[in-house]
Amino acid sequence: MYGLIGSFKAAKGKRSELIALLLDDVGEMPGCRSYVVAEDPNDEDNIWITEVWDSAEAHKASLAIPAVKKAIERAMPMIASFGEHKETKVIGGHGLPK
Amino acid sequence: MYGLIGSFKAAKGKRSELIALLLDDVGEMPGCRSYVVAEDPNDEDNIWITEVWDSAEAHKASLAIPAVKKAIERAMPMIASFGEHKETKVIGGHGLPK
Repeated sequence: MYGLIGSFKAAKGKRSELIALLLDDVGEMPGCRSYVVAEDPNDEDNIWITEVWDSAEAHKASLAIPAVKKAIERAMPMIASFGEHKETKVIGGHGLPK
Repeated sequence: MYGLIGSFKAAKGKRSELIALLLDDVGEMPGCRSYVVAEDPNDEDNIWITEVWDSAEAHKASLAIPAVKKAIERAMPMIASFGEHKETKVIGGHGLPK
């Protein structure tokens, strides 16, 4: 499985709105096992996202889903800067629905 | 919800054994929504763990579960060094079974 660990900073005062957008229901995301959006308690603008996908290809394909593309377009103006970006090879764990 | 993003390095040649131990079934972990163990593809010793718990208290309580304590005891000699340790406030996402 393919994992992503990333962070980015919302524009000043926009974190809640941005998180709500990221959690908007975009319908089926084939191959997505886990997608978690979190606030950084030590930085009022910072957001952490951790994801697990069946494969890198499944993740890449999701970026072409119309509802996902639209969400990304709406999100971009609210993102001030990108931080961490780690790709991982997920071996297993709990809470990874088939 | 309470999130953790952490990394640590296995002792030389011990990553697979350590990951297998971390994924050993320790039975019920009350309050654990997600626990994901991954290899770092860019560092043959590095392991990433991302977790989501109902609360920090639920996570802390899990460390007292006998099977978890035993797994940690067995794991420690195989850990060479600790790396990242981020606590997050999880807002929501996909794949976070109730």
